Amino acid sequence: MKVTRRSILLGGGGAALGLAATAAGGYAVGHTVAPDEASASSDVVPFDGAHQAGIATPAQARLVFASFDVVSDKASDLSELLAIWTGAARKLTIGHPIGPIEGPSEVPPVDTGEATGLPPSALTLTFGVGPSLFTKNGEDRLGLAAKLPSRLRPLPPLPGDVLDPARSGGDLCVQACADDPQVAFHAVRNLLRAGRGIVELRWLQLGFAGNTRTTTKGPTPRNLMGFKDGTRNLRVEDAGELDRFVWVGQEEPQAWFRGGTYLVARRIRMLIESWDRDHLGDQEAVIGRYKESGAPLTGTDEFDEPDFEAKRQDGEPVIPADAHIRLAAPEDNGGMRILRRGYAYTDGIDPRTGLLDAGLFFIAFQKDPDKQFIAIQRKLGLQDGLMEYLQHTGSGIWAILPGVQPGQNLGAGLFA
Amino acid sequence: MKVTRRSILLGGGGAALGLAATAAGGYAVGHTVAPDEASASSDVVPFDGAHQAGIATPAQARLVFASFDVVSDKASDLSELLAIWTGAARKLTIGHPIGPIEGPSEVPPVDTGEATGLPPSALTLTFGVGPSLFTKNGEDRLGLAAKLPSRLRPLPPLPGDVLDPARSGGDLCVQACADDPQVAFHAVRNLLRAGRGIVELRWLQLGFAGNTRTTTKGPTPRNLMGFKDGTRNLRVEDAGELDRFVWVGQEEPQAWFRGGTYLVARRIRMLIESWDRDHLGDQEAVIGRYKESGAPLTGTDEFDEPDFEAKRQDGEPVIPADAHIRLAAPEDNGGMRILRRGYAYTDGIDPRTGLLDAGLFFIAFQKDPDKQFIAIQRKLGLQDGLMEYLQHTGSGIWAILPGVQPGQNLGAGLFA
Repeated sequence: MKVTRRSILLGGGGAALGLAATAAGGYAVGHTVAPDEASASSDVVPFDGAHQAGIATPAQARLVFASFDVVSDKASDLSELLAIWTGAARKLTIGHPIGPIEGPSEVPPVDTGEATGLPPSALTLTFGVGPSLFTKNGEDRLGLAAKLPSRLRPLPPLPGDVLDPARSGGDLCVQACADDPQVAFHAVRNLLRAGRGIVELRWLQLGFAGNTRTTTKGPTPRNLMGFKDGTRNLRVEDAGELDRFVWVGQEEPQAWFRGGTYLVARRIRMLIESWDRDHLGDQEAVIGRYKESGAPLTGTDEFDEPDFEAKRQDGEPVIPADAHIRLAAPEDNGGMRILRRGYAYTDGIDPRTGLLDAGLFFIAFQKDPDKQFIAIQRKLGLQDGLMEYLQHTGSGIWAILPGVQPGQNLGAGLFA
Repeated sequence: MKVTRRSILLGGGGAALGLAATAAGGYAVGHTVAPDEASASSDVVPFDGAHQAGIATPAQARLVFASFDVVSDKASDLSELLAIWTGAARKLTIGHPIGPIEGPSEVPPVDTGEATGLPPSALTLTFGVGPSLFTKNGEDRLGLAAKLPSRLRPLPPLPGDVLDPARSGGDLCVQACADDPQVAFHAVRNLLRAGRGIVELRWLQLGFAGNTRTTTKGPTPRNLMGFKDGTRNLRVEDAGELDRFVWVGQEEPQAWFRGGTYLVARRIRMLIESWDRDHLGDQEAVIGRYKESGAPLTGTDEFDEPDFEAKRQDGEPVIPADAHIRLAAPEDNGGMRILRRGYAYTDGIDPRTGLLDAGLFFIAFQKDPDKQFIAIQRKLGLQDGLMEYLQHTGSGIWAILPGVQPGQNLGAGLFA
């Protein structure tokens, strides 16, 4: 018995089998979840809104990040997929399956079932489109080139790049974050399944622990270097700063893209064994902060403002010239800031060396990648003492679609 | 400035540097944590006891499993390492670093720091020794061959084996489980670091979600096939059954090993895309249970006893002859049972096929691997309908050391 992709997408196989769609439990394109379907659980992050969730959302504990390539050359397939993904995301983020996990025996279940019984877990699903969606090998295969967001270009080569193409790029991305990793994995798996025939998975990265402060609340997490991370990060509660640095506004000529942002992802391997052999004083000089307290070397409390002018008796700056917090500071980058949202990862050992393959899956949001991530990373790459301990092994940039209101589908403006 | 492994192990580098050991913050071999050092947090699992923790402990949410090879040929090194690991584990499991994360600038910090500020998170560290520790390439390199536990032998080839040597075996293992994966990762990393020069990491596997019921409490987790897993598993609260099936007792000629058990680990990749295309009725027949409720096909509630004798009108058994729950059932295996404790894993995509590399990192404890895991797996492998969707890609067996009392070191009996 053959069950086509389209029949699975649109009716759980029911249509192909002549079964009633309700019995087969398919889900409708562009389906909007009725208020009474929504879980009362307080850990639901609303999917609809001016901007997509998962950006100005306090970072959840766990991440599954997926990059997809579009294998269809029909824009209508992509449009249909984004509609289906929108409907699926509305269900998943309130803790519902994308369709029944039971139903007629003669068809595959619509939902794969492993999140059944688990709470919504603050799941967010954040969707983006990469430069290769618009032009690939010089070709406008989907007829979308005229819709390219004005600042969406492949990242240039950057210092620290040891990029693996199999962990880089992709026509589409989904950032799935949740407090339960099984919920995040389930979401990505079911989105992938719903897209069979239109997209293929290019790469997938699990992030096991949120390692960047993104919110005014709670303690600052530590990254795998043992240092507090994100002390001076943007805060998701600071709407004014997000407008200034993150959300694409009226300056964008592509009207459809206003309200979006750009996501840069970097799989940053930490050379942990080397770092662990470094002396405490060197580690602190490289970062520019004390390890235990997180205070800048010119202060005593984590949230003391670093004094980049302060000098030691010998005339050298207290926070060294090549300290990470100096080079990354807005004071040193024309006031530029980015919203970071990184996760610790480990993928076992590097078979070539026997050393741990672990570090930070770095994610940053910004409205102007050239002036923000790229400019800052160029500077860090050339001077930052920390670069000795880091290798950027994966990379990607995506334009994160603007948010949607109930009844709307993500990316509709691409096809208007 | 050279800081030797031994100086780090024994004194955070202080000894080598002529600093006072207290200032350098080293930790003592065989250190026993005083009662007032212990956290009051209720999520501390006691390290000391007749058996190691992490076995008869309700499965925590997250796993980091590490396999090590011993690169020293001196038994005294190994004995020292086990003493250091014991002391470190006593600290880590109450949420303490293995040593200060600050201290003199001129030496590397003893602890890597990324768990500082995190609660104990029910961390357990469970240590085992593999057959290759006793004899490797026919050689008794550590002089331990006479201490070999009587049932510790490499696993024979088994049906379903597609084993990757780089994900199999190992002289030592550590199962680190915690409710916070950063706590588990931190523990393994610091144990590895403390063992530098004596052990090397052979492989490491992250398990992102506990997927097997091990306790009388709470709901049964679902595995990545979407089915409830562990409905008929042994329960950690059932001391009588654990004595019968898990703990090595007086029957063991190696007196030092009594109180231990055998851990079998199998990295079981699920061919998820094939499974997801299978019809619900086939999935349920392959497992022998209903997907949503988890009830056996002969019942209506998850905990109904399966009726393996029940026949359909056509004379065929209701629970098919090749159903997983029939073939794995104690009723079908001479009453044999094992304590399973598996975790979902995903390691991105299989570069050869573009398909997801995800499944179950299976862990089982038993007192007699030949009569328990091996016998059951042979049977499953030959008849189980589920095997079509599974590949065993990694494998290992270890003798889990007996528990220790305060002041004792793990594995001391090996060197007596």
